[in-house]
Amino acid sequence: MNLLDGFFRSPAVEPFFTDKAAVQSILDFEAALARAEARAGIIPQDSAAAISASCRAELFDLPGLAEAVPRSGNLAIPLLKQLTSVVAHTSQDAVRHVHYGATSQDALDTGVVLQLRSATRAIQKDLDGIIVSLANLTSTHRKTLMLARTWLQPALPTTFGFITAGWLDACVRHRERLPRLVQDSLVLQFGGAVGTLAALGERGAQIAALLAEELALPFPRIPWHSQRERIAEVAAVYGLLAGTFSKIARDISLHTQTEAGELSEPSAADRGGSSTMPQKQNPVACAAILATTLRVPGLVGTVLSGMEGEYQRSLGPWQSEWETVPEIVRLTAGASHQFTALLPRLVVNSDRMRANLELTHGLIYAEAVTFALSKKLERSTAHKLVEEACRCARSERRHLHEVLSTNAEVSAVLDTKSLGELFEPANYLGSAEAFLEAVLTEVHSRFESPKSIARG
Amino acid sequence: MNLLDGFFRSPAVEPFFTDKAAVQSILDFEAALARAEARAGIIPQDSAAAISASCRAELFDLPGLAEAVPRSGNLAIPLLKQLTSVVAHTSQDAVRHVHYGATSQDALDTGVVLQLRSATRAIQKDLDGIIVSLANLTSTHRKTLMLARTWLQPALPTTFGFITAGWLDACVRHRERLPRLVQDSLVLQFGGAVGTLAALGERGAQIAALLAEELALPFPRIPWHSQRERIAEVAAVYGLLAGTFSKIARDISLHTQTEAGELSEPSAADRGGSSTMPQKQNPVACAAILATTLRVPGLVGTVLSGMEGEYQRSLGPWQSEWETVPEIVRLTAGASHQFTALLPRLVVNSDRMRANLELTHGLIYAEAVTFALSKKLERSTAHKLVEEACRCARSERRHLHEVLSTNAEVSAVLDTKSLGELFEPANYLGSAEAFLEAVLTEVHSRFESPKSIARG
Amino acid sequence: MNLLDGFFRSPAVEPFFTDKAAVQSILDFEAALARAEARAGIIPQDSAAAISASCRAELFDLPGLAEAVPRSGNLAIPLLKQLTSVVAHTSQDAVRHVHYGATSQDALDTGVVLQLRSATRAIQKDLDGIIVSLANLTSTHRKTLMLARTWLQPALPTTFGFITAGWLDACVRHRERLPRLVQDSLVLQFGGAVGTLAALGERGAQIAALLAEELALPFPRIPWHSQRERIAEVAAVYGLLAGTFSKIARDISLHTQTEAGELSEPSAADRGGSSTMPQKQNPVACAAILATTLRVPGLVGTVLSGMEGEYQRSLGPWQSEWETVPEIVRLTAGASHQFTALLPRLVVNSDRMRANLELTHGLIYAEAVTFALSKKLERSTAHKLVEEACRCARSERRHLHEVLSTNAEVSAVLDTKSLGELFEPANYLGSAEAFLEAVLTEVHSRFESPKSIARG
Amino acid sequence: MNLLDGFFRSPAVEPFFTDKAAVQSILDFEAALARAEARAGIIPQDSAAAISASCRAELFDLPGLAEAVPRSGNLAIPLLKQLTSVVAHTSQDAVRHVHYGATSQDALDTGVVLQLRSATRAIQKDLDGIIVSLANLTSTHRKTLMLARTWLQPALPTTFGFITAGWLDACVRHRERLPRLVQDSLVLQFGGAVGTLAALGERGAQIAALLAEELALPFPRIPWHSQRERIAEVAAVYGLLAGTFSKIARDISLHTQTEAGELSEPSAADRGGSSTMPQKQNPVACAAILATTLRVPGLVGTVLSGMEGEYQRSLGPWQSEWETVPEIVRLTAGASHQFTALLPRLVVNSDRMRANLELTHGLIYAEAVTFALSKKLERSTAHKLVEEACRCARSERRHLHEVLSTNAEVSAVLDTKSLGELFEPANYLGSAEAFLEAVLTEVHSRFESPKSIARG
Repeated sequence: MNLLDGFFRSPAVEPFFTDKAAVQSILDFEAALARAEARAGIIPQDSAAAISASCRAELFDLPGLAEAVPRSGNLAIPLLKQLTSVVAHTSQDAVRHVHYGATSQDALDTGVVLQLRSATRAIQKDLDGIIVSLANLTSTHRKTLMLARTWLQPALPTTFGFITAGWLDACVRHRERLPRLVQDSLVLQFGGAVGTLAALGERGAQIAALLAEELALPFPRIPWHSQRERIAEVAAVYGLLAGTFSKIARDISLHTQTEAGELSEPSAADRGGSSTMPQKQNPVACAAILATTLRVPGLVGTVLSGMEGEYQRSLGPWQSEWETVPEIVRLTAGASHQFTALLPRLVVNSDRMRANLELTHGLIYAEAVTFALSKKLERSTAHKLVEEACRCARSERRHLHEVLSTNAEVSAVLDTKSLGELFEPANYLGSAEAFLEAVLTEVHSRFESPKSIARG
Repeated sequence: MNLLDGFFRSPAVEPFFTDKAAVQSILDFEAALARAEARAGIIPQDSAAAISASCRAELFDLPGLAEAVPRSGNLAIPLLKQLTSVVAHTSQDAVRHVHYGATSQDALDTGVVLQLRSATRAIQKDLDGIIVSLANLTSTHRKTLMLARTWLQPALPTTFGFITAGWLDACVRHRERLPRLVQDSLVLQFGGAVGTLAALGERGAQIAALLAEELALPFPRIPWHSQRERIAEVAAVYGLLAGTFSKIARDISLHTQTEAGELSEPSAADRGGSSTMPQKQNPVACAAILATTLRVPGLVGTVLSGMEGEYQRSLGPWQSEWETVPEIVRLTAGASHQFTALLPRLVVNSDRMRANLELTHGLIYAEAVTFALSKKLERSTAHKLVEEACRCARSERRHLHEVLSTNAEVSAVLDTKSLGELFEPANYLGSAEAFLEAVLTEVHSRFESPKSIARG
Repeated sequence: MNLLDGFFRSPAVEPFFTDKAAVQSILDFEAALARAEARAGIIPQDSAAAISASCRAELFDLPGLAEAVPRSGNLAIPLLKQLTSVVAHTSQDAVRHVHYGATSQDALDTGVVLQLRSATRAIQKDLDGIIVSLANLTSTHRKTLMLARTWLQPALPTTFGFITAGWLDACVRHRERLPRLVQDSLVLQFGGAVGTLAALGERGAQIAALLAEELALPFPRIPWHSQRERIAEVAAVYGLLAGTFSKIARDISLHTQTEAGELSEPSAADRGGSSTMPQKQNPVACAAILATTLRVPGLVGTVLSGMEGEYQRSLGPWQSEWETVPEIVRLTAGASHQFTALLPRLVVNSDRMRANLELTHGLIYAEAVTFALSKKLERSTAHKLVEEACRCARSERRHLHEVLSTNAEVSAVLDTKSLGELFEPANYLGSAEAFLEAVLTEVHSRFESPKSIARG
Repeated sequence: MNLLDGFFRSPAVEPFFTDKAAVQSILDFEAALARAEARAGIIPQDSAAAISASCRAELFDLPGLAEAVPRSGNLAIPLLKQLTSVVAHTSQDAVRHVHYGATSQDALDTGVVLQLRSATRAIQKDLDGIIVSLANLTSTHRKTLMLARTWLQPALPTTFGFITAGWLDACVRHRERLPRLVQDSLVLQFGGAVGTLAALGERGAQIAALLAEELALPFPRIPWHSQRERIAEVAAVYGLLAGTFSKIARDISLHTQTEAGELSEPSAADRGGSSTMPQKQNPVACAAILATTLRVPGLVGTVLSGMEGEYQRSLGPWQSEWETVPEIVRLTAGASHQFTALLPRLVVNSDRMRANLELTHGLIYAEAVTFALSKKLERSTAHKLVEEACRCARSERRHLHEVLSTNAEVSAVLDTKSLGELFEPANYLGSAEAFLEAVLTEVHSRFESPKSIARG
């Protein structure tokens, strides 16, 4: 583990992206290939058994591989040399059946697909947890009144549950994207040197199908070695997920400002302190999420740029994916890991939420008053009347309610009680709860164990 | 039309992104809102009629809008002022029902959704044409032998049809993505000032449903004004499409090199000349496509970065989408427009394709020989033997066939005829045709009028 | 002017990037070339005069150019055809001397260099104004106490002048970069078809020098048509400037939050309102700046990606610069234009700044107390003692001063007066004023008319 | 070393970016701070000595740091805890003087500056070597005739030396940028918690100056902790360098195509082979360079995006630099490392260069002929005549020289000898050599040991 991995990455996903895991994924491809070819009668069962048994990463010399990569230009070539040696210890005859009919890119592409599949499943689990946490917050806070803000300025009343329902809905949509990604984009690559499986004669397609079965991977219509939209889609879908994570963390961090004081990260003895200021309790989880997600868009751009690879195997663009695609997934997983820990412990200060509604001394009810007045008055008359009252409230530092109470035009059409009710935040929530319920219903209908999610 | 629009953009899509079209889209929202609210009995039918009738872009003062935008901070606000004036000419009473219960962002977001839907439908049509062209090339050239190249170097024989089948398959997959994008991501935005539709009291969700109906847009569970993953998905999906376009254009441009001479753009009197070199016939379409698609990844990154918008309406990130998202679509459409014209006229020089197979003096058959030998010899023995023969052929500038013919070890296991057959490109195509057929079958099964696509 | 240009772009810079201006820049190149060649005796003076006289954009048919660009692949080729016709009206003989020895790229590259030079000079002027405004704020507010915040949380006291001095210093550094950019990167491009000026025989370098003189452009050692680091440096330097603008606007927008209330944009009748909420005064200038600057990094990435252009003129990468580089400059100019208007009118609420220092009930003085105590106590003892007092102050909602006053360990080493002084923000500003003065001194020494900048 | 480090990164630079090196850089800051403060009399000499002696990375528990980082939110905080323990073993009294008056960011920012300075110096050395190699190629091949290509199509004759002179010139310009970057952007960061050095009272600026002296770093006017344009400039300058590297590698890789055969990477036993095709000699160095440099633009975009950091220390943006900025430098160094090995061994096939001049059967001399004819004929007449001859040569597959020889209009104005001379590539090089010499002269004047660079 590198020094900053704990900040940027996830313990749930890192194991799939170690050097050893990369090697093992390639070996998994080679072992499955041997088994598939044995099933097809292309190579002997004994060879397949010998190859399969040799495909264990712990038998391989990783520093030796690292040393050879710059000369060979990829990881698979020196790895296959080592595999040949390892197999030779068991069966000299099996040597000729190692990597039979395949090319390096088959092993590397399918290898990374296997890594991405494992990682995606782990992230799905994280996302399930995040959805449960957000559903709980939504359910619990469906009536917790607070300020909605637009352009960083107070706008209208809302509820905290309605805000989290928006985050939740985005996460639910991402949760639908991941299995589709696994199904559509994380598929077998097997085409031989140029995609034709020439070395396997007429048996290529059949062996490919068996190989897909061995690896439990979908089998594409045609090898995709030089069409990178599948890999780029992985990058893009994680880019979308990271974007949603950045939005949620941005919001939490703003609500956490001392000036707002509406949310806070859970405090702990050695968490978020300063090397010099003893009072500090920095929102470390949000910082980690925002730092992590800020890095993803540029990486997605890199992968999209790399789609322009030349001919049947490109010179540069393909290779530029090798560290970039895993990095996108690892960083997004880092953010998801932070949320998994943060959301169930998020401190919600509903008193401050309620109190902040008064921050503008009633100005946030201007829209409500305008709509009430415009039922009786010309709308533009109403708008100007309220606008003027707002200006007056601001300059005289009075409450808008008070300003309007003493306005004859207002009194003429709104009685005291009606006017007062317009300044009740709970009266001005529109369809918030209906929308919120629609999201919760979707969550409940979608998840197998709904009991982990509180119902209203 | 700006000077370079013809190079970078598409006449099929530009009409949806003019200033006037942007204004009309917002007006379409406002008209539909009025109709929906009249249907719900929230505003009088007369008002809805007056508003609807006023929602025609030609009635509006665009320079006046342009002048007001920097102060108001968005296009909707001054547009609504103008709309109010226009409506007032018809019905003073209807004025109060303009934009009733909505916020600027509802109009702007839904407006852009309508523009994106129109553009996406136009691009789908382009893509259909591209698919037909590629299917025709694939079908026609299923047996056109040529060189496959990896790392910019000759690798093995393939067919031109197999290469185009790879491009085609990617396009078919994109063709599936677009309707899904329309369905999932191009949906109604209607939430009022902060997403709650507060101004509509308890009727908000009902009116939203009617409004969605009026605009024939899907109705989301909850307003998405501050969750931008839908818009970002539009950017991402177009980024993937642009990436595939860049790949195809990159390949065509390389095959077009005089040194390869395998493909060329159709020549025309004033096409692709030089201001100073009379012999020049530059591949202008490929240049336009590559220039266009190179610009998309950075823009997609911008949209992903902007997902981190604050609170219920952001300060900067949302606004950064306004020109960026349309630009992504326009540029991708520009590339698709170029292909639509280029592909049916692409000049395929199958003689040069055939001739270039001999470029390496037989070295591209090295794999075939190795596989043939390794049925009799140890595989590493075979590989080394052929590697050595390749070295010898290279240094002595002899044909590999000739070198191997005079090699006793080879002659011991391969007779003259068998060896000769290994140097026949048509004998070393593996499953190319099977894969190609799988793609064509998919195309035929998917498209309504398959007769436009030649069958083999 | 497009609808959103006023929001994203600058009236001071837009005139340099209209279609007409682009055409004129190319014509300026052609006119200067003719004059230079006449001076060298390569073409007759009469021809040069005829060509020069024809090089006025208003004589050209821009829609005709737009129509021809997609076929010719660049703007210069059809423009030269039109120029030839225009010249032919004056002098049939001069026709043969049009564009003599040059290639399209010479005209296009030098043309854009001329546009970029004009724009850069205009932006320098904006930046001078911004520097003056920031120097004034710095000077005026050198003693205006306020909260410094880290991780979005209150940290220590500072002054508003010290904060603006940081912004100012960055702007001064950018102001040094711009002339260097003009000198090093905005230089003549003149190389003929492939950089050798072959058509001019042995006179090429001489004519190039004269041409540089005519255009008052630096003359590079060797044509740079296929080495794009100069153009990419323009993109990068503007990217840095946009980055600093984004930082300043981000800070202002946060200080403008109602919860902080420390700064506000000047209010005006029709500025920053909402289509539905009468109380709204949105910080429109900051939104425009942030929206604009958010778009620049992706575009800079595009230009860097395009540096990988093939051979002596690339197919795609070069063309991808055409709209991207101007866009970077235009967007950055848009931000600079917003600041030019905003900064002199920025409303500074020093009362709220002062008041917010009390937001943490003394916790921001924890560091000061720790340093005072650690002169007498073990440092870790001091740190723990203060940390514990902070915790106590937080949980009991008491002022840290009060908590510490009643602590015996503290009283043992700090008398009441000394402790009280530690809670005076003005006593804990360290070198703020010294640093601030260093920046102001730099500003005064650098600018010719220092009187526009207030002195302390 | 990770598995792919040898492919993407440089052994000359990696040592500066290990975890241990990061820790040591922070410790170097802390040791220098203690010494500076002792010199200023702020802390005792004994403390400084004890602290200095403890600042050795090998005394620290790196896994322990990694484990603590996610909680503390940065590396400096747990590192300072460990440093305190280490110091305590030597001197309990010195403990209170550890990190005296500084903040984490001071240590982290200055630490990374020290790393970047070391790396930049190493890369300067690489770049010197690259410049020598390119100067040698330029000098050696100043008369090596070959094809210049534009839009991937043959254009005119040029020399290989002229082409490399263009690459060389760009490298010389980058070589000027690096020391300027070190001087302007790699400067001390020391500001305490919020930039004011409050904890050091009035002594802050003085100690900062001594600290800068201790570390041999320039001393900025004002702390730059929250103005990130210096760090972003590092990213940008390396982005430009990477861009030039991508251009050179792109060109080499194209010249290396079998179809062109003009350049090749040196072959070696285990270099650039295939796992299945025995004939393969892939250009591995170019692939590594292109893969590496393709990754840089997106990362530069990330750093530019991160400039928008909030207030006096940002939440996310600053932290996003931590891995990104080193990665940009490491990847660029990887490319420079590849070039350092490749360029002195680049195989130049001047026979193929010469032969390829005939690829177009004389069409590349069309411009030369046109210019010769237009001295006698109307220019448009000449252009049309030659254009027509080109068309004829193409369709009849004849040499342009032959076509023109039999054209009466041509014969009327050009005698056989003159026409023949126009088809001599050496006669149509214009100022190529003059430009080339200008670049070589610059190289010779700039470098201390010019003898390593061959003179013409």
